[in-house]
Order: sequence, then structure tokens, then C-alpha cells
Amino acid sequence: MGHETNKHAVLGMDIGGTKLASALFDYQGNIIYRETRGLRKRNGSEAGEIVKGFFKEMKDLALSRGISVSAAGISIPGISRFEKGTVWAPNIPGWDDYPLLEEVKVITGDIPVIIDSDRVCHLMGEVWKGNASGCSNAVFIAVGTGIGAGIMVNGEILRGSSDISGAVGWMALDRSFRQEYIQYGCFEYQASGEGIARVARIYIDGDKTYNGALLKKDPGEISSYEVIDEFRKGDPLAVRVIKECIGYWGMAAANLVSILNPEKIIFGGGIFGPLTDLIPDIKKEAAKWAQPIAVRQVDFDVSGLGSDAAIFGAGYMALKSCNIKHNPDPEDA
Amino acid sequence: MGHETNKHAVLGMDIGGTKLASALFDYQGNIIYRETRGLRKRNGSEAGEIVKGFFKEMKDLALSRGISVSAAGISIPGISRFEKGTVWAPNIPGWDDYPLLEEVKVITGDIPVIIDSDRVCHLMGEVWKGNASGCSNAVFIAVGTGIGAGIMVNGEILRGSSDISGAVGWMALDRSFRQEYIQYGCFEYQASGEGIARVARIYIDGDKTYNGALLKKDPGEISSYEVIDEFRKGDPLAVRVIKECIGYWGMAAANLVSILNPEKIIFGGGIFGPLTDLIPDIKKEAAKWAQPIAVRQVDFDVSGLGSDAAIFGAGYMALKSCNIKHNPDPEDA
Repeated sequence: MGHETNKHAVLGMDIGGTKLASALFDYQGNIIYRETRGLRKRNGSEAGEIVKGFFKEMKDLALSRGISVSAAGISIPGISRFEKGTVWAPNIPGWDDYPLLEEVKVITGDIPVIIDSDRVCHLMGEVWKGNASGCSNAVFIAVGTGIGAGIMVNGEILRGSSDISGAVGWMALDRSFRQEYIQYGCFEYQASGEGIARVARIYIDGDKTYNGALLKKDPGEISSYEVIDEFRKGDPLAVRVIKECIGYWGMAAANLVSILNPEKIIFGGGIFGPLTDLIPDIKKEAAKWAQPIAVRQVDFDVSGLGSDAAIFGAGYMALKSCNIKHNPDPEDA
Repeated sequence: MGHETNKHAVLGMDIGGTKLASALFDYQGNIIYRETRGLRKRNGSEAGEIVKGFFKEMKDLALSRGISVSAAGISIPGISRFEKGTVWAPNIPGWDDYPLLEEVKVITGDIPVIIDSDRVCHLMGEVWKGNASGCSNAVFIAVGTGIGAGIMVNGEILRGSSDISGAVGWMALDRSFRQEYIQYGCFEYQASGEGIARVARIYIDGDKTYNGALLKKDPGEISSYEVIDEFRKGDPLAVRVIKECIGYWGMAAANLVSILNPEKIIFGGGIFGPLTDLIPDIKKEAAKWAQPIAVRQVDFDVSGLGSDAAIFGAGYMALKSCNIKHNPDPEDA
């Protein structure tokens, strides 16, 4: 080691499907240093090596600046199995039951390392430094390629009996069951990023009178972002698709409000972003369905941290794991 | 007092819309003595006096047997506002924000008194002595006149930010919004006891070819129990109504499974009872919709305690409030 350390930090890492982002945070939640790396579709143990190498770089960098890393948090695009220390991440080939904790511990040594799902990390980031600051009962609904939620109740993360709570993409919202729901869940089939593109393609196929801009695309290449662009321009088919999504997002949020009675519902993920301004319409839809007192009391909001929510959440989990709260580091004073 | 007490007990009371039930429990959860009283549609403070009088009787009875009451739990048909100690119970006129805790404390003195909703008490009863014994993540879905749920996560009751969590009767399950849902919530409108009777009446009105047994009733007098009786006999209209309910109960349970990832879903309330044997059909419906791993891991069951669930739950909350767990009373040994 050979370095005198006189400052403390926690390390947060956000493992995405295609890249890694990492940051050193001081105990107040300020970023001291941040860095990204590509992950480039490596298989299981190769991806593990990249993660380990990145951890080592970040740790060495901290040491070179006289900073001691007290704990690390990792956000993964999947499920963290706490008892086993393994992870499942469908977009990283070979991470079915991958021993990520054991791998990372080779680098981090004895400091606490917490691994959790991106949806939980998003929520924790918002609770630390974003739009759920100070909440004890809050939900982060992540609408990206798929849909999932991070849920906090009584000030604790709701994990469920086998760490797969918050699978809100499977919410049943439309009584007529369709075989297509088996693969995705009803809500995700209809109102995720992939869902938006899929529903648009189906409507284009089914509507011979439509001659808008989306018809000029190769159907396989229509993305949710193009549908959103055309929605902005008033394209009737895109307007229909997004308005239906507003209905589904409102119903799903209503159900979470009636069941959980939270203070805050936050919409985030790749789609919010571009659709941030639809929050009042979504709340209006939710208010039609939800328990009336609970829905009057809840705030609807978008992520305050955007694509940084997961890395902040990973840092906050690290901080909590060593029982350091928002207190200033005495040695920094 | 004048009595030597050498045994300890907790007192549970279940306040229903029309009657009170109370029981003394030993610390192992055995009923020492139980009693009921009519409530007969009294207004707020009269109902409060009856509750107080009943508490005094039970306490005096305990003393006369040399039993000291360590704590009391009360189940109410509404919402308990913990911070204020007041209750809202729509079926007891005048209990809008009624100071039940203060009233009861006049009789109970300094022992802990816990007041909670019947849906939470039902769940707690099942966790103590019923079909959720040993669970840390469980849901009790009470289907009676209305629909509500008691929810336990991470071993704690989920209360939400203002004590109104578990309002699952408001779950949005059928995309086409109807004005009728505003009063009840979509799920409760369709699949509660009142919902079963209501939907049957609507179908009778709308189906001029129907000439089954329900037609012989005054429409205003058709109850859910009559619809269930005719369902048993194969009446096609009653079969249609109950089959639709199975669909709704399955969707609602699926949503709770996907969101909360519990070990156990328990159906109780007045309707289960008569419909206990439908649980496998309901689970089959739920399995179509829910997150597939979570639904394979969860057990669906009916209440193990039936109409006693709330009184056991009230007793268990009392026991927990004085930090006595399942340990035997040393003085009983």
C-alpha cells in the first residue's frame, strides 16, 4: 500500500449491458472522480475480468490521491442473489448464477461489497441525492427496454422472499389475456421501450390508411425513440401508441399507490428522459383508478439523476453498508 | 386490586360492524377465555362506551382468575391512524376520526394498546397461528363486502406513508375505465361480495333468455351467497359470474406476487369460506400473468383461522407490543 490515507470514500459501480461506469463518492455524496469502460458483449468470466480490472484501477487511483475506499456498491442489470453472492444478468452472456461477489472481493479485500439490481440502485440514488430524498416509502418505475421497479417501504428496500420483488413489468392490466404476455408480462409487452416499438409496428401493419413518417422505415428498425419523435410531431399513429402507454403507466402507478401508499412515484429509465413532460397526464390517469386518498397524497416525478441514478445508488448502498450515514468525515473537517 | 396474579395474558378484541369479539390468550396463543357482544349500530361515542365496558369486563374476568393482562390489541373495520391514536371505520357512524386509543386507555391504564385495521389483524393472526406461520413476506386478501389486503414484507407490516396501504380493492385490472369504479375501485366493483351480487343482477337484467333460479328472487335481495349456491348447482349465469371473479382474483394475486414476491398469498373474508375449493383455479389464473419464477415459488392458501383470524391477530400484536415472543411464561412453568 505505502500511502498515507487521510480521506475516505465509497466506490459505486454501474454495470450496464454494454458499459461500466464507476465513481468515487465522498460521504456527503459528492463525486470525487468518475470513469467509464466498455463491456462489449464479453461472456461471463471475461466480463468478470473487466469488472475486476476496473475495480483495481479505481482503487489504485483512490490510493494515489490519498483516499481510502471504505466500501463498494455494484448495480447490475439483473438480479442479485444475496445469500449466495451470485448474480443473474440476462444481457451478459454466462451471468446466470455468476459469483460476482467472490470475484470482486479478490480486488476489494475486506471492505463491504453490496451488489443489487439496477432498479433498486436507481431508487437508492434518488433517495440519496435525487427526487426521493428523505422518503421512507417510494417507488422508482424504470421504463427502458423492459420495465421494473425499485420499491422502498418503511425506509427499507423491499426484496421479497427470493430477491425478485418489483417485477412490475408482469403487472396484469388488461383482462383479455394474450399469449404474447407469457414472454414479457402484460405491462411490459404494452408500455416498455420495446413495447412502444412493437405496438407501433402492429398498428402500422393493421392500418392500411396510415401513410405517416413511420411507414417509410423498415419495420424492423422502428425504435421507441422514433415513435416518440413522431408523437411530438403529431403523427396520429404515434399519438395513439403513446396515449395508450400513458393509460398503462397510469394504471400501473395507480396499483402501486393503492397497494403501497408511497410518498413518491418516480418514473425513470431510457423513456423518461424524452417523455418527462407527460408526468401530469400519467398522474391524471392514475387518479381515475387509485385509492383516492392515497393518490392525492403521492407525488409523481421523474428521476432527478437520470442516467446517474444507478451509480449514485450503488454509492449510497456502499455508504449504508458501513453504517456511515450523511455525517461528515471527521478527518475531512 | 386485591388479587394475587400469577399468570399473564394478552387481550385481543375484534370490533366488527355489528358485534365485538374478545379473547384472552396465553403467551403461546391458546385462548383462555372468549366472549362476544352486540354492537347494534350505535353512534360514535355510544359504540366507544360499549367497547370500554367490554374491555372492563374482560379485564375484571382476568383478574378474578388471577391473570394479569400485559397488553391489548384491537382490530377495527377501517383505518388506524397510529400517530394520532384515532380510527376511521365507515360502518360505525361517527367513527371518522374517533379517539379510540384514548378511550380504551381509560380502562386499560398503562399497558400497551395497539389498534390496527382488520386486514392487518387477519394477516397477523395467520402469521401467529394460521396458514402464514413463520412467513416474513405474506399477503392476506380479504374478500368480504369489500376487498382489502394485509401485507407483510421483510417480517414487518407494510403500512405505507399514511397507514392506508393494502387498498387492493382499487386495483386497476380492466383497461376500459368505467365510472362505476370511482366509488369502489375496479377490483372491488367486480369481485367483492357486493360485486358478485351486483354483477349477477346486471347480467340477469341484460340476459332475457336466462330463466334460472336467481330470476325468481327480488333483484334487490340477491346476495353473493345465493350466487355462490347457484354456482354450485351449475346455474349458467352464476357460473359466468364466479368464473369472471376467478379471473379477477387471479390477476390481483398475480400483481401482488410480481410486485412483492411473497412466500404466501392467503384468501380469506366472508367469500372464502364458501369458495375455498377454488384456490387451485385462482392460482392457475395467476400463473398466466405473474412473474414466472415468483409465482412458482409462492403458495396460495385459504385462511387457517377463518372468522377468528382478526382476534388472533389482535392478540399477536398485543404480544409483540410488549416484546414477548413465543417464549413460555416463566411463571406458568
